[in-house]
Amino acid sequence: MAKGIIQPRILKGFRDQLPKIAIARSEIVSRLSEMFCSFGFVPIETPALELAEILLGKGSQETDKQMYRFEDNGGRDVALRFDLTIPLARFAAMHINELGTPFRRYHIAPVWRAEKPQRGRYREFVQCDFDIIGTESIYADAEVILLAQSIFNALNIKHTIRLNNRLLLNGFLAGIKAQDESSAVLRAIDKLEKIGKDAVSDELKRETSLEQTAVDTLFSYLALSRESEEPKAILKELRSLCKGQADAERGIEQVELLFACIAESEFSDSLGSVSLDLSIARGLDYYTGTVFETFLCELPELGSVCSGGRYDNLVSVYSKRELPGVGGSVGLDRLLAGLEELGRIPDRATTAEALLTVLDESSMGKSIALAQKLRQEGIAVELYPSPAKLGNQLKYADKRGCNKVIIAGSDELESQKYSLKIMNSGEQKDALSFEQLAKSLKQ
Amino acid sequence: MAKGIIQPRILKGFRDQLPKIAIARSEIVSRLSEMFCSFGFVPIETPALELAEILLGKGSQETDKQMYRFEDNGGRDVALRFDLTIPLARFAAMHINELGTPFRRYHIAPVWRAEKPQRGRYREFVQCDFDIIGTESIYADAEVILLAQSIFNALNIKHTIRLNNRLLLNGFLAGIKAQDESSAVLRAIDKLEKIGKDAVSDELKRETSLEQTAVDTLFSYLALSRESEEPKAILKELRSLCKGQADAERGIEQVELLFACIAESEFSDSLGSVSLDLSIARGLDYYTGTVFETFLCELPELGSVCSGGRYDNLVSVYSKRELPGVGGSVGLDRLLAGLEELGRIPDRATTAEALLTVLDESSMGKSIALAQKLRQEGIAVELYPSPAKLGNQLKYADKRGCNKVIIAGSDELESQKYSLKIMNSGEQKDALSFEQLAKSLKQ
Repeated sequence: MAKGIIQPRILKGFRDQLPKIAIARSEIVSRLSEMFCSFGFVPIETPALELAEILLGKGSQETDKQMYRFEDNGGRDVALRFDLTIPLARFAAMHINELGTPFRRYHIAPVWRAEKPQRGRYREFVQCDFDIIGTESIYADAEVILLAQSIFNALNIKHTIRLNNRLLLNGFLAGIKAQDESSAVLRAIDKLEKIGKDAVSDELKRETSLEQTAVDTLFSYLALSRESEEPKAILKELRSLCKGQADAERGIEQVELLFACIAESEFSDSLGSVSLDLSIARGLDYYTGTVFETFLCELPELGSVCSGGRYDNLVSVYSKRELPGVGGSVGLDRLLAGLEELGRIPDRATTAEALLTVLDESSMGKSIALAQKLRQEGIAVELYPSPAKLGNQLKYADKRGCNKVIIAGSDELESQKYSLKIMNSGEQKDALSFEQLAKSLKQ
Repeated sequence: MAKGIIQPRILKGFRDQLPKIAIARSEIVSRLSEMFCSFGFVPIETPALELAEILLGKGSQETDKQMYRFEDNGGRDVALRFDLTIPLARFAAMHINELGTPFRRYHIAPVWRAEKPQRGRYREFVQCDFDIIGTESIYADAEVILLAQSIFNALNIKHTIRLNNRLLLNGFLAGIKAQDESSAVLRAIDKLEKIGKDAVSDELKRETSLEQTAVDTLFSYLALSRESEEPKAILKELRSLCKGQADAERGIEQVELLFACIAESEFSDSLGSVSLDLSIARGLDYYTGTVFETFLCELPELGSVCSGGRYDNLVSVYSKRELPGVGGSVGLDRLLAGLEELGRIPDRATTAEALLTVLDESSMGKSIALAQKLRQEGIAVELYPSPAKLGNQLKYADKRGCNKVIIAGSDELESQKYSLKIMNSGEQKDALSFEQLAKSLKQ
């Protein structure tokens, strides 16, 4: 390092995002926002920094340890948010009387967790949350599932949404006398996909008081949705298995209503399906009804890219008011990692439809005017900022994945007849009028 | 407070953004991104947290004091970024060889400063930066100015861009032997609009060694662009005033080229003008050529809502490489505050085009299906999540500024004939087919 130079580097666990990935990210975020809005969800913003006591409110010990927490210049104990749920709860406790219910919000924003960095896991990542609060209606659950489906359809991604219901699970657990150990049981079930049946069975016997018969019943319960794809058939089996368990029966009813709604309004050209998966448990204490996860058909091992469910009371930590809700969250960073793995991120580091080359200093003013005229037609144009060899400008376009190059030297600008080179085919059209040029660029 | 309840509150100097303002903000951000892309600028992302030594690099003492700086769990000295310029410099030092030049990037992201909170000033705010780096071409300056203009045209905001050139200013200051005190002089000039000529004159005599004659010459220089709106006329006067000052002459040449370009490509329907304002100085050491500020015609006292300029070397702190550039930044929070003051923020807390009312539990499935069908037509629809009195649902729509309400009970859903109520006129259309309904909603 030269004297006085500070070595440019980045914090461990953090990253820069270069244009190719940042463009893909920004396009997905636009699409998400559009879909949220098409269901009438409204954006809100909350601060990245909150008082630590607010964030500590309901967090688990694990998240507490992962918080970026410090004393600010005013001596306040503050921290960076580690999710968007606790800020929503705090926000709702303060503003819901003014806003009224039902209230549908979305929030796309970064969160910070000082986790051990792993491949594809960073200490700063973006959450995309959507929730309908202030309603117990199962139809809100249906809207959340349909929104998840619409999002992946809009992104042109084949997907499967697997849903379950905590009432069902809890009722069943009561049936095998495991209601007091539900946390440990759900934690073990959650690993079924990952570690397999035998290891889960071992864990259940080690961590809970369940005996072999109960474990067998549990597996036969979980197997119901493995053996059939048809929710109706599974629900029929469940009815007899859970007879007399009030919670389970309410859960079955909710699941039935949900599937009926979805069947009635699913698009025929949907790229995804919704199935009942009795092994979806989703964490521990938070959820109380519907729970769901979403997987990419081409890369299920990526894990869920959109998860959520219903909860009874969002704001209990901050208010006496009861505020039930249902929502979900798109894991944007995981989704992007998956799309990259699938080769679905275009190799393109430009937002421009075309590069306008510049060959003569004397006609720069006309070049800028042409660029502006094309932009006014809705065509994104990058202007090379100074005269340079045509070959270098073509290389520049090629490097960025910009497929169309407008060639306009002073003669072309004078006669208003332009050339357009298509980089990937090598084809070149000459002597195009402005209208012909604009038309070719719009194609 | 009830026992065990944590009082929900927000950090001093921070704020929640409720739907009305968050919707307006999100629409402006979309429009900004569109305009950045239409000029071929690409997005990048950098971490909110950086090593403190990186951020301290070139910051002034003032920004250092305002940093949220702390020790992270790993004992590292870290801080939240207080602007997007230093992260860009660090990013460019690390990645520019891979990315190549010219490189046009935009970056819309929050920054944090522990400033004294004032009306309309918060400790977290969003910057929207755009820069073209790796080129000395004055035509890049022209593109930056035209982009600023295009942004405010796209936002339908009457504006005026005032530009100046630091070479011009410096050359002139050399002419009155004030080149060694340029910082103090520029600082004083910057206040002209705010505190008036007499106070600036006092400050100049107090803080610099300028004598009355020099101060008078300075004011007559500044007055040139006050007395005329016509850049050509001003430049002619300047030529004689600055004769023999090499810097000033180069500056005059650049300004001439810039105005020629802008005149050639300005849209005839532009809502703004670009003028030469010799009193625009923009801070101290950073800028080396073009500098500009943008004001709302209807609210000039708001201050500049989009400022920037040319700099010689972005990355000198982190690299030996020279990297000149030119760029600007939209002050999103200030702009929003201005639009709010002008009554330009719609009183609307919904993203939905229409509310679909729900009157019967038994036909909820059909209601959801109707909502989905409308959404597929590109119409944003909010579904009321459970049956409720029509009056309450109308009130709900009214409160949110949702002007269209679809009324569809089980009869309407069965016969597929719907009613549409327009809230502000009270008009109601009945027995609309799906196609008629969709058409009315798209209007």
